[in-house]
Amino acid sequence: MPNISQRGLDMPASPIRKLVPLANRAKAKGLKVYHLNIGQPDLPTPAVALEAMRAVDRKILEYSPSEGNLSFREKLVKYYAKFNINVTVEDIIITTGGSEAVFFSFMACLDPGDEIIVPEPAYANYMAFAISAGAVIKTVPSTIEEGFALPSLERFEELITPKTKAILICNPNNPTGYLYTQKEMNQIRDIVKKYDLFLFSDEVYREFCYTGAPYISAFHLEGIENNVVLVDSVSKRYSECGIRIGALITKNQQVKENVMKWCQARLSPPLIGQIMAEASLDTPEEYMLDVYNEYVERRKFLIDGINRIPGCYSPIPMGAFYTVAKLPVDDADKFCAWCLSEFEYNGQTLMMAPASGFYTTPGLGKNEVRIAYVLQKEELGKALEVLAKALEVYPGRVI
Amino acid sequence: MPNISQRGLDMPASPIRKLVPLANRAKAKGLKVYHLNIGQPDLPTPAVALEAMRAVDRKILEYSPSEGNLSFREKLVKYYAKFNINVTVEDIIITTGGSEAVFFSFMACLDPGDEIIVPEPAYANYMAFAISAGAVIKTVPSTIEEGFALPSLERFEELITPKTKAILICNPNNPTGYLYTQKEMNQIRDIVKKYDLFLFSDEVYREFCYTGAPYISAFHLEGIENNVVLVDSVSKRYSECGIRIGALITKNQQVKENVMKWCQARLSPPLIGQIMAEASLDTPEEYMLDVYNEYVERRKFLIDGINRIPGCYSPIPMGAFYTVAKLPVDDADKFCAWCLSEFEYNGQTLMMAPASGFYTTPGLGKNEVRIAYVLQKEELGKALEVLAKALEVYPGRVI
Repeated sequence: MPNISQRGLDMPASPIRKLVPLANRAKAKGLKVYHLNIGQPDLPTPAVALEAMRAVDRKILEYSPSEGNLSFREKLVKYYAKFNINVTVEDIIITTGGSEAVFFSFMACLDPGDEIIVPEPAYANYMAFAISAGAVIKTVPSTIEEGFALPSLERFEELITPKTKAILICNPNNPTGYLYTQKEMNQIRDIVKKYDLFLFSDEVYREFCYTGAPYISAFHLEGIENNVVLVDSVSKRYSECGIRIGALITKNQQVKENVMKWCQARLSPPLIGQIMAEASLDTPEEYMLDVYNEYVERRKFLIDGINRIPGCYSPIPMGAFYTVAKLPVDDADKFCAWCLSEFEYNGQTLMMAPASGFYTTPGLGKNEVRIAYVLQKEELGKALEVLAKALEVYPGRVI
Repeated sequence: MPNISQRGLDMPASPIRKLVPLANRAKAKGLKVYHLNIGQPDLPTPAVALEAMRAVDRKILEYSPSEGNLSFREKLVKYYAKFNINVTVEDIIITTGGSEAVFFSFMACLDPGDEIIVPEPAYANYMAFAISAGAVIKTVPSTIEEGFALPSLERFEELITPKTKAILICNPNNPTGYLYTQKEMNQIRDIVKKYDLFLFSDEVYREFCYTGAPYISAFHLEGIENNVVLVDSVSKRYSECGIRIGALITKNQQVKENVMKWCQARLSPPLIGQIMAEASLDTPEEYMLDVYNEYVERRKFLIDGINRIPGCYSPIPMGAFYTVAKLPVDDADKFCAWCLSEFEYNGQTLMMAPASGFYTTPGLGKNEVRIAYVLQKEELGKALEVLAKALEVYPGRVI
C-alpha cells in the first residue's frame, strides 16, 4: 500500500471536530448537548433567498462563469459601496465559500516557503489552507488580558524575514470577536506598506459590529489598494452557510489573473447558491436589524453570564458572534472532552471549542475556550448554568 | 506591489478559455457560433432534481457534514452496486464537483515533487491540480493512429522513478472518448501492483459507453483495492454541471482520513446541490435511455460527418461525448482562433478546443482538436458544414 502524503499527516485536525465523536456518544446516551462550539447561526435564512431557489425555472443547471454570475457581482458592487468599499465588477471573483477565497488568495500570492504573519488566536482553517499552499504561518500572540487587541508594531517586525509575504487578519475577529480600531488598522497599513506585503483581510463578519466604533475595511486604508485581498462570504450574514458562496476581492490585476486560473481549473462556483446569494442582497432591512438586535442581546446575556461564574472571564467582544473566555481549569481541551464524556447535569451537558486549536504557539490558550452565541437566550441561559455546575465539580479545576 | 506566486505564473491557461474573448467578439459581430468546445451537455436536468430543489422546506440552510449527507451517500452505495462497484457509505466522500475530488486525491496522497503518470491527451485541469499540489505529471502519449489505445507497459515503465507515486486515468476518456478494455485495465493493475502506486481513476462518464464492451471500473481490478481512488461527478450524468457535486471514493483508510482533513477545512460541499444529486439518483430509466440514445445518434452523425470532410479523421469514440479529430491544418490553435476571428460562412462560425492543450509533450496534438457532441443533430450538421467550408479556405491548410 503506497504511503499517503506527509502534508496530510501535518494537517491539523479541526479543534472542534475531534470532540464530535464524544458529543455523538453523549447524545446517544440521551443527554441534551448545548452547542456553543459552532459558527452555524440558528437564525432563519432570508425568505427572499429561499423564494429565489424555488423560483429557479431553468431547464439545464449549467456551469456558471468561473468568476461568478455577472448580475450577482453587479449587485455586490452596490452592497460594498454602502460600506464605502469602492470596487468594480472586475474586482470581484465569486468563490465556493469564503474558504475557497482564502485558499485561492494563498495559491495566487504565495509560493512554498513564503511566510504569512497572523495575529493569534486565529481561525484554525487558515492553517490548513497554508499547509495546502506550502506556506508558513507565523503568529503574533494577542492576549485575553489585553482584550485581544492588535499586538504592537514591534511584535510584527520581529517576525519579518525575507520570506514574509503577507499579513492575514480577520476583522471582526473569529474566534475573539475583536474589532480592530482605526489606529490598529493604520498600524497594519504601515507594516504592509513598509515591507510591501499582501494584506489578506477576512471580513465575513462585517455586519456584526456592536459598538459605536466604525468597521474599518482593509479597502479603507489608503496607499495599499494593490496589496489588499479581501475575503468575504454570505454564510454568516444571511445564515446560509450551506450554499457555499463567498468572494475574493482585489484591485491587483496580477492577483486577479492568477486567481482566475484556479477558478477556471475548478470550473465554477455553485449556481443555485449564487442565485440565492444574489437574492439575499435584497433582504429587507428589518431582517438584518432583527438579526443584529438578537446578537446584541445574546452577547450581553452571555458575557454577563460568563463573568458571573466564579473564576471565569470574558472580555466584551465587539463583533462577530464569538468570544474567547478564560476558565478556571487546568486544560480546556481536557475540560471540554470531560464535559461531553463524564459530566452531566439534569441530563444536560455542553460542547465548546478549546481555544488551543486557534493558537499555534504551544501552551497558549490552554485555559481558554471559544464560545459562539448562536443559541437563543433561553438555551444560552441553560448552557451557562450547565457550565457553572461543570466547573464546580471538574477534577482539574484550578484556583 | 508584492510579487504574485510563481506557481500562479506556471499554471497553464485553460486551452478552451483562451479562445473565449475571440468567441465573444465573433458573437458581438452578430455571428452564430457553434460551440463544439465545451463539456456542458445541452440535455435537460432531470425533473426529479429540479423538483427536489423547489421542495426544499428547510428554514436554515446549514452546513452539511464535511463528508456529505448520509442519505445521499447511502443511495450512492446502491447506485455503484449496479455497476458492480461494491463500496460502503464510509468509502464515499462527497466533494464540490469532480474537480475537488481530483484535487483532494492529490493533496492527500502526494507530496511536492511526487510524480503521476498520465496517458495523454488528458483533461487539462489535471495539470492545474497537480501544480496546486506541487506534484509533477509525466505523460505517456497515446496516438490518434492507434485510436488512443493505452500505451504499452514498456512506455509506462520507462517513466517510473523513485518519485513515481500514482497513475491517473480517465475512463471513458475525456478528451478522446476512448474506453479502456479489460486487457488494458489489467495492464494498469499490474503496474500499480508492481510499483505499489495509487491509481486515480476518473470515471465520471461511466454511463456513456457506446460499445458492447463492458465498462471496467478501477474497483473491478483485483488485488489493488487499497490503491484505488475513484473520482466521480453527477455533472455530466444528469446534465447538472452547475450544482457542483462529485465524490471521492476509496477503501484506503489512511487516504480517507487524510482527505477528510481537507474536507473539514473547506467545511462542507454545497447543500442544495447534494439534495438535487440525491434526487437525481431516482431519475427514471427512460431519461437515461433517452440521453444515451441521443448521444449514440449524435456520435454516429458527428464521426461520419468528420470523416467525410477531405483530410479529416476521427477514430470512433467508444464513450463520453468527445472525440479528438485530426484536421488538415498547420496548427490547430491558429485554425481555431482563425475560425473565430477571421472566418465566417453565411453568418456562422464554430469554436473547437485545440488538442494541444490536452498534451504536455511539446508538438503533440498540433493538428488535432477536441470536438464535443453536446449540440443537437441539426446544429451538429450545420457546424460540420461550417467546418468543411473553413478548411477549404483556411490559409494554413496542409495537404
